[in-house]
Amino acid sequence: MSSSDAKSINNDFTQKDILSLSQFDRTSLETLFDKTTSIKGEKDLRKLLQILEGRVVTLLFYEPSSRTRGSFDAAVQRLGGRTLIINVEASSVAKGETLEDTIKTFENYSDAIVIRHSELGAAAKAAKVSNIPIFNAGDGIGEHPTQALLDMFTIFEKKKSLSGLVGLVAGDLKHGRTVHSLLKGLSLFENNVIYLLSPDQLRLDPELKSQLEEKGLKLFEIESVTDIPKDTDFWYWTRVQKERFSSEVEYKKVNNKFVVNNELLSLYAGPKTIIMHPLPRVGEIATEVDKDPRAVYLTDQMKNGMYVRMALLSLILSPV
Amino acid sequence: MSSSDAKSINNDFTQKDILSLSQFDRTSLETLFDKTTSIKGEKDLRKLLQILEGRVVTLLFYEPSSRTRGSFDAAVQRLGGRTLIINVEASSVAKGETLEDTIKTFENYSDAIVIRHSELGAAAKAAKVSNIPIFNAGDGIGEHPTQALLDMFTIFEKKKSLSGLVGLVAGDLKHGRTVHSLLKGLSLFENNVIYLLSPDQLRLDPELKSQLEEKGLKLFEIESVTDIPKDTDFWYWTRVQKERFSSEVEYKKVNNKFVVNNELLSLYAGPKTIIMHPLPRVGEIATEVDKDPRAVYLTDQMKNGMYVRMALLSLILSPV
Amino acid sequence: MSSSDAKSINNDFTQKDILSLSQFDRTSLETLFDKTTSIKGEKDLRKLLQILEGRVVTLLFYEPSSRTRGSFDAAVQRLGGRTLIINVEASSVAKGETLEDTIKTFENYSDAIVIRHSELGAAAKAAKVSNIPIFNAGDGIGEHPTQALLDMFTIFEKKKSLSGLVGLVAGDLKHGRTVHSLLKGLSLFENNVIYLLSPDQLRLDPELKSQLEEKGLKLFEIESVTDIPKDTDFWYWTRVQKERFSSEVEYKKVNNKFVVNNELLSLYAGPKTIIMHPLPRVGEIATEVDKDPRAVYLTDQMKNGMYVRMALLSLILSPV
Repeated sequence: MSSSDAKSINNDFTQKDILSLSQFDRTSLETLFDKTTSIKGEKDLRKLLQILEGRVVTLLFYEPSSRTRGSFDAAVQRLGGRTLIINVEASSVAKGETLEDTIKTFENYSDAIVIRHSELGAAAKAAKVSNIPIFNAGDGIGEHPTQALLDMFTIFEKKKSLSGLVGLVAGDLKHGRTVHSLLKGLSLFENNVIYLLSPDQLRLDPELKSQLEEKGLKLFEIESVTDIPKDTDFWYWTRVQKERFSSEVEYKKVNNKFVVNNELLSLYAGPKTIIMHPLPRVGEIATEVDKDPRAVYLTDQMKNGMYVRMALLSLILSPV
Repeated sequence: MSSSDAKSINNDFTQKDILSLSQFDRTSLETLFDKTTSIKGEKDLRKLLQILEGRVVTLLFYEPSSRTRGSFDAAVQRLGGRTLIINVEASSVAKGETLEDTIKTFENYSDAIVIRHSELGAAAKAAKVSNIPIFNAGDGIGEHPTQALLDMFTIFEKKKSLSGLVGLVAGDLKHGRTVHSLLKGLSLFENNVIYLLSPDQLRLDPELKSQLEEKGLKLFEIESVTDIPKDTDFWYWTRVQKERFSSEVEYKKVNNKFVVNNELLSLYAGPKTIIMHPLPRVGEIATEVDKDPRAVYLTDQMKNGMYVRMALLSLILSPV
Repeated sequence: MSSSDAKSINNDFTQKDILSLSQFDRTSLETLFDKTTSIKGEKDLRKLLQILEGRVVTLLFYEPSSRTRGSFDAAVQRLGGRTLIINVEASSVAKGETLEDTIKTFENYSDAIVIRHSELGAAAKAAKVSNIPIFNAGDGIGEHPTQALLDMFTIFEKKKSLSGLVGLVAGDLKHGRTVHSLLKGLSLFENNVIYLLSPDQLRLDPELKSQLEEKGLKLFEIESVTDIPKDTDFWYWTRVQKERFSSEVEYKKVNNKFVVNNELLSLYAGPKTIIMHPLPRVGEIATEVDKDPRAVYLTDQMKNGMYVRMALLSLILSPV
């Protein structure tokens, strides 16, 4: 089962797996984002604690990821649920047991399993044998659907729409899993225009580009920051990894052209352009930008990761 | 204090340590299994949450064991308690502090300690200095009493009795801690007949065999799967570890004779023979067997690990 | 920002960081210790669970410390809060992300962050960027304020006062972070007399000694256990680390002179002298002393670590 076989949500989240962004249509996204807004706005923290009271969620991490794990852990616990944290690299299940047997084990103890794995398709493999919902928290070069959902929710929250947007995505557009997901998500809506800025070696794959354009997304490759149109709705910046380059010199030459700082913002961003980044960053955004009210990467974007996951958990495990 | 000095339960679980299966007589087992059945049958999850509300249990693991730790963690949390998870190999208490000092430390923060250790007698050593209940979650070649209890409960649940049974235990009967415990447990009841199937090098220790027979257990060694009597109540299969053999060739030759698959089931198992295994497995049971309704190793047997631990925690920490 | 810039508590704990003992004056200590006494005396565990209900505290540990982490973990959970445990050495945030970005991340998921770090000033650095309270759980050679507070509370609890005391501190007075904090704390009160006993190489720094004396603390260096005055209120013993000596021989020669055993107690301690140690110990206190009613290092002193932290969390996050 590849993640593209994942069952469509079709606006009924009850007991579904979350494996891929492709499970979501517009209506399902709207339902999810309404729920997210309502949970984020809830002032009475104790009310939320009833939603997963008595439920247990296993966080099964085959590779470390303190950000994603912490966010899921907080999400479950803020809904009153409990977590079992299983770090596999440090545990005996690493020794020879199949992924399927490990999933069946924790299925017996819990009401859902969040899985992070380095191998493409691991989450779908887990879902195939599991009788409880599986949440894909990243499967190698595969998908990381909750990251995509938090990015989309952040844009929706700030722009009140996911249609008619003009945005910039920058950095490594070839390998960047989060960028691919975001573009796929935006292609579900109308009249979106995205400018693509990347080093030559790291351009968006032409095939993926065509697919997205067929769905109606307007994509324009630009060559330099000087081509960024004023007044975009958002900038989505990503990391350019050293490993992608033949030499340190080559890497530095390229990377220095892709740094967001106050000067770049004053020249090319509009007063309402929100600045996003999936984090961690390694210099692509200067820390001087952190206090700019348009910067959301350290605040709402990350906080929304927790709220989107709370909304998903709530819709899937505790439908009203 | 060796684990055989452990205080007999004598049908009063309050604040007792659980170090060894030898603490249990028939009445205590019946009380425990009644409690387990009642907890497993409780539909209102929130009711269970009151049992350990406000209590803290430390899970002190000197060796990794995600299955046992996860099961205890889920057990405590499903009863409304909280866990402190201390993985010693990754922590400073590894550096020079005695087991006793570590136990005294966590005694101050918690209401019970679950300990897993590679050394025989470690749990009893802990119990000697501790003012709060100690649960032995495996001490090397020593005991792992909650594993034995979950195995016995699983048979009891499926067969409605622990007397008058005919069973098969197979695999490494020389080193297998779980098999020894199961046989001891069954020797407390009447008219049980057990067939023993193992490679020559891994037979049940003759001395242990005599002890069990003195208690009234009927034991028959058989030479091959073809000797398995039809219509046994259960098969309890265990892992044959490569390390026990002088060569890979020797290991494979033996191991291939000890694999449960659909063919073997159709030839030698009865319609009500339940198939058990303590897990993890490394090929002793083909995955094609997993969906057979008689196979309980991935389902009830494992789930019962959580429920038996919930029942113990409840009887020991929260007697009514 | 160094920890000495930490905002004075000034008897208002609401949403304050706890970075240094220097934030506390007498009144603040009295408020804290009253709260600690009341929490320690609360018989209804469920009442405590309401204090942090719905709150999440991140335990961000850049170096392992099962004792301190366990104590904070228990403190949060006994107040009904939830914890996110992030062991950084085992996690991806270790890879290149700045401390500040990591703090901003967990700020989004939680209501407070407890941080342990090997670098001096790390907690203050965290507090500088954080919008939620930061608890310093030890920053290298810097401070470990909650350890100091639990030591002072233990003396207060047993002696009903922090003035007019006669005490002995022994061991490594040069490097011992806990000793320095305790002496600073006692210097806030009147008429305290402290005897200092250490190997020559590990005497209290003369400059720190002068500062403490200026504040009114009376300090007397003694040369040998035979100089310990009878009827002191407390002995505070610390570890002498092998690494401080040029050779194993040199270390053993010195260390053997600094061991508390029953004989030493009978010769030099009074009937009401309490015996303290911050733990872990590596032989400075013989285990025969553990059962002496005057020994509090394995019992009240450690338990008070949890209660002082509960009191702090309560005053800071849940003021009434």
